[in-house]
Amino acid sequence: MKEFKIIQLPPYPRGFHLITPILLDSLPPLPDSGLMYFFIQHTSAALTINENADPSVRRDLEKYIDNIVPEDFPGLEHTLEGPDDMPAHVKASFFGSSVSIPIIGGRPALGTWQGIFLCEFRNRAPGRKVVCGLL
Amino acid sequence: MKEFKIIQLPPYPRGFHLITPILLDSLPPLPDSGLMYFFIQHTSAALTINENADPSVRRDLEKYIDNIVPEDFPGLEHTLEGPDDMPAHVKASFFGSSVSIPIIGGRPALGTWQGIFLCEFRNRAPGRKVVCGLL
Amino acid sequence: MKEFKIIQLPPYPRGFHLITPILLDSLPPLPDSGLMYFFIQHTSAALTINENADPSVRRDLEKYIDNIVPEDFPGLEHTLEGPDDMPAHVKASFFGSSVSIPIIGGRPALGTWQGIFLCEFRNRAPGRKVVCGLL
Repeated sequence: MKEFKIIQLPPYPRGFHLITPILLDSLPPLPDSGLMYFFIQHTSAALTINENADPSVRRDLEKYIDNIVPEDFPGLEHTLEGPDDMPAHVKASFFGSSVSIPIIGGRPALGTWQGIFLCEFRNRAPGRKVVCGLL
Repeated sequence: MKEFKIIQLPPYPRGFHLITPILLDSLPPLPDSGLMYFFIQHTSAALTINENADPSVRRDLEKYIDNIVPEDFPGLEHTLEGPDDMPAHVKASFFGSSVSIPIIGGRPALGTWQGIFLCEFRNRAPGRKVVCGLL
Repeated sequence: MKEFKIIQLPPYPRGFHLITPILLDSLPPLPDSGLMYFFIQHTSAALTINENADPSVRRDLEKYIDNIVPEDFPGLEHTLEGPDDMPAHVKASFFGSSVSIPIIGGRPALGTWQGIFLCEFRNRAPGRKVVCGLL
């Protein structure tokens, strides 16, 4: 039995944001066993699973990824929407558009330190839409 | 009810290619709710979801990724099949071997700008095999 | 019918390790059609699918990723657990926390050269926990 709904997140600033509670709250009651599934409907933002405790991890992730996919890369063609646009597309594919988390005993089988991040790669983006559901 | 079939894509040149219609056409009629799933059976090519409109995104993705994973990296051992081979393996793991897309109301719940890319990382590759199905 | 169990891998040294047999052995008998699913419960290690034959691919992957996500990156804040910690978080999100493999005719529909890698990004890590199951 699959059932999906689309939620709209509030707008977030550029960076990595822990949104585990928002996503979990969007789901119907968890079955004993199954899979939670989340899919972001955008190509300049992403979802990923990373450390849920120390916020410095989220800030350092941003420093690394901005260095790996720099805005001042020479020879780009897709620049009409600003210098943050094309790097955002590259980053979106590196981090990916969906995450899934198994359910065991009616609870998310996340590791102790795992949470779900919204990866916002644009300087100014509206609230992103995420498809949330159970498999 | 899961059902998968393997399709063989035509050969594509190195680069990123929008193959959404080919993949969707490979599926049986969509259920009201469910998940479309695609898995590439190769380790030097990948699948990803990115922008379906402006082809300059696909060309710029190629420029970025060739810079991030360069062919002239010193000290490589896996070079027998040519300078594009080992970088292709790295890129394949960065982009990933599978993508999934939720189905809502009998239609793919893709965002307006989302499409599925074949990421071809070899200079000369035969047509790639993709497992296509519904979950 | 979903059923997951958590297995604990033995400790592995930093690097990429082919663990396909361990993961397949953890599953119940495969159905005729379905999906194998594996999820790592950590944020400084990952799972990916890559070439199962030549071990030089695994060594070269390590060289590339250590160069793309260097330990001596200036300005990091999350350094308390050692210089390999923050880079491990970045790499974990690049490679991803889960992999899935379709099942066709009761067998894993892997390509000839595909296997599952444990990506161990810490210098000294205990055995990692992986959720294994069928969808």
